Amino acid sequence: MAKTKASARTKERDAKTLSKLVELATSVSKTALAGKDPAIEIPTRTKSNTIWNRKRGILEMGDAVAQRELFNLNQAKQFMQTMIHAASIKELIETEKSSSLRSLFYAAKHTVAGTKENTFDEQGESDPILEDLEVSLGALREELHIFAENRGTLVGNLTIVDKGDEIDCRRMGSGGYGIPSIVEPDVIQFKKCEAKFVLHVEKGTVWNRFNEDRFWETNNCILTHGGGQPPRGVRRLLQRFNQELKLPIICVLDCDPWGHYIYSVIKQGSISLAFESSRLAIPEAKFLGLRSKDFEVCKLPDAVKITLSENDVKRAKEIAAYPWFEQHKGWQKEIDHLLRNGFKMEVESLVKRGISFVTEEYVPQRLKAKDWLD
Amino acid sequence: MAKTKASARTKERDAKTLSKLVELATSVSKTALAGKDPAIEIPTRTKSNTIWNRKRGILEMGDAVAQRELFNLNQAKQFMQTMIHAASIKELIETEKSSSLRSLFYAAKHTVAGTKENTFDEQGESDPILEDLEVSLGALREELHIFAENRGTLVGNLTIVDKGDEIDCRRMGSGGYGIPSIVEPDVIQFKKCEAKFVLHVEKGTVWNRFNEDRFWETNNCILTHGGGQPPRGVRRLLQRFNQELKLPIICVLDCDPWGHYIYSVIKQGSISLAFESSRLAIPEAKFLGLRSKDFEVCKLPDAVKITLSENDVKRAKEIAAYPWFEQHKGWQKEIDHLLRNGFKMEVESLVKRGISFVTEEYVPQRLKAKDWLD
Repeated sequence: MAKTKASARTKERDAKTLSKLVELATSVSKTALAGKDPAIEIPTRTKSNTIWNRKRGILEMGDAVAQRELFNLNQAKQFMQTMIHAASIKELIETEKSSSLRSLFYAAKHTVAGTKENTFDEQGESDPILEDLEVSLGALREELHIFAENRGTLVGNLTIVDKGDEIDCRRMGSGGYGIPSIVEPDVIQFKKCEAKFVLHVEKGTVWNRFNEDRFWETNNCILTHGGGQPPRGVRRLLQRFNQELKLPIICVLDCDPWGHYIYSVIKQGSISLAFESSRLAIPEAKFLGLRSKDFEVCKLPDAVKITLSENDVKRAKEIAAYPWFEQHKGWQKEIDHLLRNGFKMEVESLVKRGISFVTEEYVPQRLKAKDWLD
Repeated sequence: MAKTKASARTKERDAKTLSKLVELATSVSKTALAGKDPAIEIPTRTKSNTIWNRKRGILEMGDAVAQRELFNLNQAKQFMQTMIHAASIKELIETEKSSSLRSLFYAAKHTVAGTKENTFDEQGESDPILEDLEVSLGALREELHIFAENRGTLVGNLTIVDKGDEIDCRRMGSGGYGIPSIVEPDVIQFKKCEAKFVLHVEKGTVWNRFNEDRFWETNNCILTHGGGQPPRGVRRLLQRFNQELKLPIICVLDCDPWGHYIYSVIKQGSISLAFESSRLAIPEAKFLGLRSKDFEVCKLPDAVKITLSENDVKRAKEIAAYPWFEQHKGWQKEIDHLLRNGFKMEVESLVKRGISFVTEEYVPQRLKAKDWLD
């Protein structure tokens, strides 16, 4: 039954995307048949067209658009590339299959008949064209049937249905459920969930510590990691947990500019994917730790200090100037403290207080005291 | 019930490892108390002490050992480091916990009292000491309760028990079961398995294609990937499938020196981990594709060619000179053909013949014809 349901939902979603694609193609052919120059409008994905929406707490794309014209020497190739990819995506949707960025590049790459010109030479040309299509069509990459590399795992007090298979995430042993790249509601549905929040940790090795200590059971939560900077599938799933199940998303990341950046992307989105913030960003996400005060609060020894590099200092200052951090006293203090410390710290350094200090004392105490940055 | 069983097995395994650790410590202290210079023997992990066992078809460590002495200015620090890590591991085993390489480094890192000398400065010093302990004790890293980053997922026609949780790998949706880092028999047991072989692919995106097309169901197999060079957990699990369930391991990797190297490591082991080949290597593993003949056989267009770099050519020649490839006519021809082609190809390039050509035609036909290298 679940399968039929998912399938009906998928069909509905696909019909919508397909009609957008057909509309794009029709407008191009109509223009051409009318003897006019075919062109498409592509919203601009640049920093200058990225707007910080303070009210919604996310990065958004502005209104700037660029014309992409067929009869323009500078744009003709990109125009052709856009059309080729649009055709591939139409085929993917119609055959109910999905594909990787790499495969789409291969599918599109060929020598134009009668010339020595390739449609694409490098994947680096192909990926931005797919992003152009995402923004032009107003459809997530996942809705265009494109998947990325899977990364990240999950365990915890909930049951999910993935393509009709019911998966009890309370009984996933030491390995966990591998979070797929496409986690849209037609693929993944949530069933019984007792969990009261999501604990998201940075690395798989830290996740192992929390899973081994069965933190998610003792603290009634869902435990996820994204193998560093979480891929889109993980971010989108966290957002769905937050929006649909109303679960707080609580992050445990390293105390360094990289950890702060990961948090920033989870919370507000990134400039390069600003057009997708409304479906990826989680403005309510909380940063529980590691905090720069923890060296003293947790009585850690000097051995855990890792001196900030010049680049770390530069990155920390850049992040402090992000509009959402700039207007946040807590974050200004946090980054200032990091810079005054002159060193960064990793979550693993808490092992100095005992192997399970992080799961049995540090996180539970901070949760109880609601001691986090948001 | 499964939990009790696993736990009893774990205790048995741990008791064995613990007795080896105690033996090491006792021998050191006895020597010291007898007024002699304490020393430990560390088998040598170098290329010159790596032997190709033709009969077993795996790389093995030779008999060379080095003495590590306390009263030797060049060795005293490493002696101390070895003892510190041995103590940490004893604690891990006694508290029934496991830890990452990074956490063990932190646990051990401190300033020696009354000096400015650190026990360890970088993790790069710490990891080799842990390998020293592995070889000295004759215990796998997993038996020392050390885990690595998890990578790789699995679906297919079998049920496994992971820490007492029964996991039906036939019903894992699009995400799959995340393969853990420690997959020893006390943690993971195999239950009902209908699968007749394992198909191991290189990348998660290719795995997605096979899973989406439900290849494992149509072809009655287990489907795995290792996110590039498979981590130890994946290699060990593949070996257990091969040895305990008698399943052939069939690899689908890129047609390039990196793909050949991945295969070589799965099959014969690596020099750096030669001491663990007997528990990681799978001499029977087969290389199904991509093959250098496939450009012609599969009628692929020029667009899929990726010119071999100078480094690729160098690597290809090095790999061709590995003893197990050097004595294998098929492999000599394969690498020679690759070099004559002058280009490499990725599995994704088969998309040129249709999105599911790889799952519906290429792999099934090669399987039927037993057309592979072994």
